[in-house]
Amino acid sequence: MNQTGNLSAQLDEAGRLRHLLRLQGLSRTFITELLDRATAFQTEVGKPPARDNVLRGRTVANLFFEPSTRTRASFELAAKRLSADVLNLDVNMSSRTKGESLLDTIYTLQAMQVDVFVVRDASAGIPEYITENVIPQVSVLNAGEADVSHPTQGLLDLMTIREVKGTIDGLTVTIIGDIAHSRVARSLSEGLTIMGNNELRLVSPDGLSADPTLYPGAILTSDIDGAVEGADVVMALRIQRERIKEKANLMTGMDYHRDFGLTEARLRLAKPDAIVMHPGPMNRDVEIAGAVADGPQSVITQQVHNGVAVRMAVLAAVTESRQK
Amino acid sequence: MNQTGNLSAQLDEAGRLRHLLRLQGLSRTFITELLDRATAFQTEVGKPPARDNVLRGRTVANLFFEPSTRTRASFELAAKRLSADVLNLDVNMSSRTKGESLLDTIYTLQAMQVDVFVVRDASAGIPEYITENVIPQVSVLNAGEADVSHPTQGLLDLMTIREVKGTIDGLTVTIIGDIAHSRVARSLSEGLTIMGNNELRLVSPDGLSADPTLYPGAILTSDIDGAVEGADVVMALRIQRERIKEKANLMTGMDYHRDFGLTEARLRLAKPDAIVMHPGPMNRDVEIAGAVADGPQSVITQQVHNGVAVRMAVLAAVTESRQK
Amino acid sequence: MNQTGNLSAQLDEAGRLRHLLRLQGLSRTFITELLDRATAFQTEVGKPPARDNVLRGRTVANLFFEPSTRTRASFELAAKRLSADVLNLDVNMSSRTKGESLLDTIYTLQAMQVDVFVVRDASAGIPEYITENVIPQVSVLNAGEADVSHPTQGLLDLMTIREVKGTIDGLTVTIIGDIAHSRVARSLSEGLTIMGNNELRLVSPDGLSADPTLYPGAILTSDIDGAVEGADVVMALRIQRERIKEKANLMTGMDYHRDFGLTEARLRLAKPDAIVMHPGPMNRDVEIAGAVADGPQSVITQQVHNGVAVRMAVLAAVTESRQK
Repeated sequence: MNQTGNLSAQLDEAGRLRHLLRLQGLSRTFITELLDRATAFQTEVGKPPARDNVLRGRTVANLFFEPSTRTRASFELAAKRLSADVLNLDVNMSSRTKGESLLDTIYTLQAMQVDVFVVRDASAGIPEYITENVIPQVSVLNAGEADVSHPTQGLLDLMTIREVKGTIDGLTVTIIGDIAHSRVARSLSEGLTIMGNNELRLVSPDGLSADPTLYPGAILTSDIDGAVEGADVVMALRIQRERIKEKANLMTGMDYHRDFGLTEARLRLAKPDAIVMHPGPMNRDVEIAGAVADGPQSVITQQVHNGVAVRMAVLAAVTESRQK
Repeated sequence: MNQTGNLSAQLDEAGRLRHLLRLQGLSRTFITELLDRATAFQTEVGKPPARDNVLRGRTVANLFFEPSTRTRASFELAAKRLSADVLNLDVNMSSRTKGESLLDTIYTLQAMQVDVFVVRDASAGIPEYITENVIPQVSVLNAGEADVSHPTQGLLDLMTIREVKGTIDGLTVTIIGDIAHSRVARSLSEGLTIMGNNELRLVSPDGLSADPTLYPGAILTSDIDGAVEGADVVMALRIQRERIKEKANLMTGMDYHRDFGLTEARLRLAKPDAIVMHPGPMNRDVEIAGAVADGPQSVITQQVHNGVAVRMAVLAAVTESRQK
Repeated sequence: MNQTGNLSAQLDEAGRLRHLLRLQGLSRTFITELLDRATAFQTEVGKPPARDNVLRGRTVANLFFEPSTRTRASFELAAKRLSADVLNLDVNMSSRTKGESLLDTIYTLQAMQVDVFVVRDASAGIPEYITENVIPQVSVLNAGEADVSHPTQGLLDLMTIREVKGTIDGLTVTIIGDIAHSRVARSLSEGLTIMGNNELRLVSPDGLSADPTLYPGAILTSDIDGAVEGADVVMALRIQRERIKEKANLMTGMDYHRDFGLTEARLRLAKPDAIVMHPGPMNRDVEIAGAVADGPQSVITQQVHNGVAVRMAVLAAVTESRQK
């Protein structure tokens, strides 16, 4: 399993989306069209959601090897609103037999004429490994892969930025938190690089800083105030309490909220029209103040809302690319 | 979270059902119309169930924080037979972070355009707390709340009584068992008070008797034979073996079936045309004799049957009230 | 619960399929028509699956008391592709209260107008016990019963053999592995006896050999090479590592793959056009060499593929038999 591998497999010979593994490798035009399509699937909260028959008769299998409520619900609703049949499979596999059982599971579901696999896994390389083993009529969508990639999250973040800012070019974007383990930061970073000339600032406590080779051109810092100053977009990442404990030697005496939390005071350092994002689920008053999460600059529920539309767009795109 | 709170939020300004938290506060006319609607959704067992498109394009999320097979299946089938998309979410949350995570979950699902939350929780006040935090286009249905309320169970019990007795007025209704912890008794009691001039007799072992302030006008007793005598309706409640054990000091030497079980001999004390009810699941030959549960006076499967129709009526009602 | 019991209950008075418990008792004509129907539901992998409205408005409950990913997914997709509403219920019951709770669950779901119960259970007799207690409008399908019966697996095996061999008559079929505990071997054996004059060879290590009274006419042996020689069909059964350990005294010093694995060398002893089958999930390089499982003679994914079509045929058949 090669986690950097040849991602050209994402597109078919006609340049259409066959699988979605990472944003890297997709063109600006391609992503723009995908976001346009997602926007067309968007209806106001409180109004009935958009529906379409494009997946009528198709089967989408949610294959989650890592638990998830939000992302799975988002994919499930996206698929159902496109009239697909949905199969939910929460699979627990011991790591010892995983590689072998995984393929067996894929071959089995493929033989049952599953059309799309939505895969979440805690190990790097699994979604790509699956793409290498499926038949040409099957698509694989990465729904979260270790600390490597979460492309539909990246797309929904881009969609939300574009919606509010009117552009994804020339922006200063600050991401705060456990960058070292964040597939959300990875995918958003890839997207921002493709979409325009954006400045990316990555803020983390020393023990949780990014591998700089994975973020070419980005500013890596532990100076949160400096990094928030003048930003157009500020995203706080979920911090896992276990991880702080684990890094206790690096963070002795640290009060995470005081030192790395997105507080109201800190947000005032950003541009007055800056927007606040979070991939969820949130620890209020840990990485983000409750007042900021619920405040007027927050677009956090808009991210969730856009997530369903983005997943509908991706499901529709891969389904069309498989039709001959 | 205020468990007695202002329940007027159940109805919108036009008097239509917005949320369903408790029966208390609903009018006799309102409940009658709801039961009429449920009756219209009823088809004979063995015939295809009623179907309707009233929830086409709508999304119902079953948010069960307490496990349940029967009630969840009943709501799931009701929603599907009205053509809704159904999302099943079994959520385990530690109590420490629950309040916070709960709202996060609700906001997330609401942003995904879920229309109706069906909520079951072991803590009092949760369904109402959710109603206070959702947007106007969302409805919340209480599917079982601690020992406080189970309104669709109350409605299906009323529907069953009306169906067999022809009225819900002037009846003597005896409920036997762990009244202290019974949301079923609470909701039926509220319903009987609204629907007519009924006599309610609550029978329990001393350690499990009701708080009299919660059952104004009811007769509280441990004299089971006296309470069954002349009754039109006799309902046995599930007794949890754990609870008997826990109250061992109060019930030393007690044989529950002998002392508080609904036996054939005891049932003969009721009116000859008395009906036997149980909310399920049953412990046969503990709180109810198998022969009574399966006997000619039992309407227990009819209760289950009516449950789907009642939930269809409630889902249809709240959906209409949200349409502008 | 009588596990041999009167299976005539499988057919209604008009000879149509009412329940499916075992293949034994069905006629050659009947099975042929069922396989023809399944074949009509078959579309090529990579093409959209067959769909039909024959279960529109019907409810199928998957009642799995034993975990299963593949069989449940297969039944779920079969039911959805016939337009049924599907209810998934994974039920854990302690053995002590099982008999009682089981009926309670069945009565409850029946009252909710479930039309078909798909039942998997680790105890013998449970599916038949359920058929004895349901109303005439309900059908029960056995989806795996202890070591006794797995009739839809038997049908999909027959379908696959017929598809590739053109007949199910005059064949030599060798099954290798833990025959003693295999419901797959039991059902295939019943099917082969009904369908023609076939020779069945059952190979197992001594501790895991079949009860000969259950396989009249079959050859029971531990001589794997002799049993594979000249075979038309070779099926390897999953061997559970726990079981090998448990029988350690009988199998001391045994290397399962060397002694009882279906290797490439062994397969060369069979007819040149022999096919290789496995009910899955496989332990590659334990009971079957990876190269054999993925080789040109393997029809293992075809078995899975046919499984959905067979289950659609069975669901359609029982639904028609219940229509008056």
